[in-house]
Amino acid sequence: MNTDTTAQAISDLKDLLGERISTGESILEMHGRDEAYTEPALPDAVAFPESTEEVSGIMKICSRHAVPVVPFGIGTSLEGHVIPIHGGISVDTSRMNNILEIHESDLDAVVQPGVTRTQLNDDLRATGLMFTVDPGANATLGGMAATRASGTNTVRYGSMRENVLALEVVLPDGTIIETGSRARKSSAGYDLTHLFVGSEGTLGIITKLTVRLFGQPDTILAATCSFETVDNAVNAVIMAIQMGIPMARIELLDEVQMKGMNIFNPDLNLSEKPHLFLEFHGSESGVQEQVSMFESVGEEFGVSGLQWATKAEDRNRLWTARHNAYFAGKSLRKGCEGLITDCCVPISALAECISRSKQLVAESGMIAPIVGHVGDGNFHLMILIDPNDPEELTQAKLLASKVNILALSLGGTVTGEHGVGTGKKQYMKEEHGTAYALMATLKRAVDPKNIMNPGKTVEVG
Amino acid sequence: MNTDTTAQAISDLKDLLGERISTGESILEMHGRDEAYTEPALPDAVAFPESTEEVSGIMKICSRHAVPVVPFGIGTSLEGHVIPIHGGISVDTSRMNNILEIHESDLDAVVQPGVTRTQLNDDLRATGLMFTVDPGANATLGGMAATRASGTNTVRYGSMRENVLALEVVLPDGTIIETGSRARKSSAGYDLTHLFVGSEGTLGIITKLTVRLFGQPDTILAATCSFETVDNAVNAVIMAIQMGIPMARIELLDEVQMKGMNIFNPDLNLSEKPHLFLEFHGSESGVQEQVSMFESVGEEFGVSGLQWATKAEDRNRLWTARHNAYFAGKSLRKGCEGLITDCCVPISALAECISRSKQLVAESGMIAPIVGHVGDGNFHLMILIDPNDPEELTQAKLLASKVNILALSLGGTVTGEHGVGTGKKQYMKEEHGTAYALMATLKRAVDPKNIMNPGKTVEVG
Repeated sequence: MNTDTTAQAISDLKDLLGERISTGESILEMHGRDEAYTEPALPDAVAFPESTEEVSGIMKICSRHAVPVVPFGIGTSLEGHVIPIHGGISVDTSRMNNILEIHESDLDAVVQPGVTRTQLNDDLRATGLMFTVDPGANATLGGMAATRASGTNTVRYGSMRENVLALEVVLPDGTIIETGSRARKSSAGYDLTHLFVGSEGTLGIITKLTVRLFGQPDTILAATCSFETVDNAVNAVIMAIQMGIPMARIELLDEVQMKGMNIFNPDLNLSEKPHLFLEFHGSESGVQEQVSMFESVGEEFGVSGLQWATKAEDRNRLWTARHNAYFAGKSLRKGCEGLITDCCVPISALAECISRSKQLVAESGMIAPIVGHVGDGNFHLMILIDPNDPEELTQAKLLASKVNILALSLGGTVTGEHGVGTGKKQYMKEEHGTAYALMATLKRAVDPKNIMNPGKTVEVG
Repeated sequence: MNTDTTAQAISDLKDLLGERISTGESILEMHGRDEAYTEPALPDAVAFPESTEEVSGIMKICSRHAVPVVPFGIGTSLEGHVIPIHGGISVDTSRMNNILEIHESDLDAVVQPGVTRTQLNDDLRATGLMFTVDPGANATLGGMAATRASGTNTVRYGSMRENVLALEVVLPDGTIIETGSRARKSSAGYDLTHLFVGSEGTLGIITKLTVRLFGQPDTILAATCSFETVDNAVNAVIMAIQMGIPMARIELLDEVQMKGMNIFNPDLNLSEKPHLFLEFHGSESGVQEQVSMFESVGEEFGVSGLQWATKAEDRNRLWTARHNAYFAGKSLRKGCEGLITDCCVPISALAECISRSKQLVAESGMIAPIVGHVGDGNFHLMILIDPNDPEELTQAKLLASKVNILALSLGGTVTGEHGVGTGKKQYMKEEHGTAYALMATLKRAVDPKNIMNPGKTVEVG
């Protein structure tokens, strides 16, 4: 950081934003960390724009002074995306949180980037429509698009990759562009929408999103069931996917995680065996058909303890428990922190990947529950560490690294949904080979001064 | 074209490819046109590589001599994509037509770019799986990815945008890259796969594709039905989509097109009213449910003449007729050619867009049947012209232009699936605004010598 230019940029930003540029200590701290076990770093100031034009003004100023800009949604990222490792201006989009348009006929909505997924769904309730991407956290849609987020519903409804139709983006030089349109498809030139989805704020700031909506299903049925082994549970999932059962959710929680679930939610009262948490959406008869197909699959793999949650409150309890898996996992060890890693493999390799990952965990001697969006081939390993023991952190990082390399060796990716940020940058060359240099070429072309979230995702330099 | 450098490049290519570089007149002619009414232009030579390494070798030679390279699949494009307007080397991928891997467990296949969609589906038949994207023509998968093709099944199964999981691409300097993986999702860096899907050979040559497969449905039921007006037919489609009926195909043919259909297929014997051609996929009970939902929608809009095609041969006759819509349309006027335009709007704007387009046709005094993948908001207008009357061509272009501008004014795109090539380049600035300059920035960064399919899609210079 060059202190003079940054001070000058902040002064210019004050002219633009008045009180809405802050250097208050607590504000800086709030924008210096994320939800994972990543080292914090403070921005020099935090900007709170209220319009696209203001974001454009911020970018022009920061571009002129070559000061880093780090977009910030609500801070729920897990790989250090929002941490200003080179200082600069954190651009907090929380005041740009208007739902601009809901097109019921077209099954889409246009929102500002600070809108959260529950905010949008609350707004949609009366329409009979829903926004489906659900990463667990009540993240902002801007952040979810930037990290190409997905979650429990993705097996049926897709990730942000499939659910973002169009974007408005402010480029590093302040230019405002619109990518895509509300038309369902187009062959008109390069797919800029998908270039920005998953670019983690390194190419521009998302200031508006058009997202896809789905009709709320007539019938929703949730269930839990257990298997003797993780292999059996995963193989049941693989067969269900192959048979084309359109499950809305199919989540694995291994026996370690289930132990934590019972400590954290004593009223959940499920056996400490590997579990699947399921949800079926459709018409009444359609759901019935899915259920009977799933039951026959389950039987082949020795399913037991199948419990149905038909009432909304039972369903909500179930999915709240699933969403709290992080805290449940942490309750396995007093005072611990969780180092989370996330990878994704072709579904045929999933049983092997999870079973070999569990072997690696056993060899490490650490405690590390597994939960996963297994219908996508995606799972998360949470390694529990004593935050005051640097040796444990080193060991945990080594274990996470082994699991990620394993996923790559099985034709997968080092991150199914958490993104690269700083946490996964070390694997990018290995995952992408010669394609990684092309990513750097694109970054340099779009952001020649390297001011957009520098040091994340793609190495340039 | 610089004759010396081109001659030198061809000489170098002969060293690499031997007999598989051709300057024979009929070969040049075959690679100088597409299937639409676009002016031909000859390449200087046609290369027939048999491997990715050979494609890389070709690119290195052409890059060294700064000679244009135009990728060629099977020549069924409609906007001039494959026409070497600046000469150079046409790279014909027809010898790279091996199906490399079929992963039944993962519902994907890895193929070379010269594989056609019917070739892949023939190979898949015994597996119970299918590749769904169906643009009508038996196009190559490389070409379909390059133009982001879609078709009759897209409303249910997606376009090439959703069905390409990963690519191998040779960049302009000969570097071979792999984008994406067989994992169902990833957040690991920029989405290069989607950058190349739809880039029309202007950024590199696709040498391998991983495509998504679906299970063949247990039950397939096709149907035709008619409506008194195009408005009623389109409004029935809109409501069916909003209700979430997962139709596999829902195609509009207007009353003009139906007249042509009856001339071209006398045994089809359908009334000359606006028709929908439909197909439902699912379990037996699932299809039954879809059908009864559709019937109730149809009734609201005065559907008549609902005919079911349960037998495979009846279904095939129906869809063959639909695929021959181009020839059927042409049979409305003896000796004519068809100038086709394609646009796509948000589905709520579709009825208005089609009805205003028909008004524009009426005002022009020309004959122009409409067919459309209306479930996507996409339709095609085929304007029938006397190929020997330049005035008619001018008039037809003017009419097509009015329809495209109309689509843009309704929030749509000037091409839902045919692509830009040379035919739609004139609309790119209007459609994309400031984003068009970003496309040019990307093109310049990836292809600094502008040798990849120059003059198409994106204006640089």
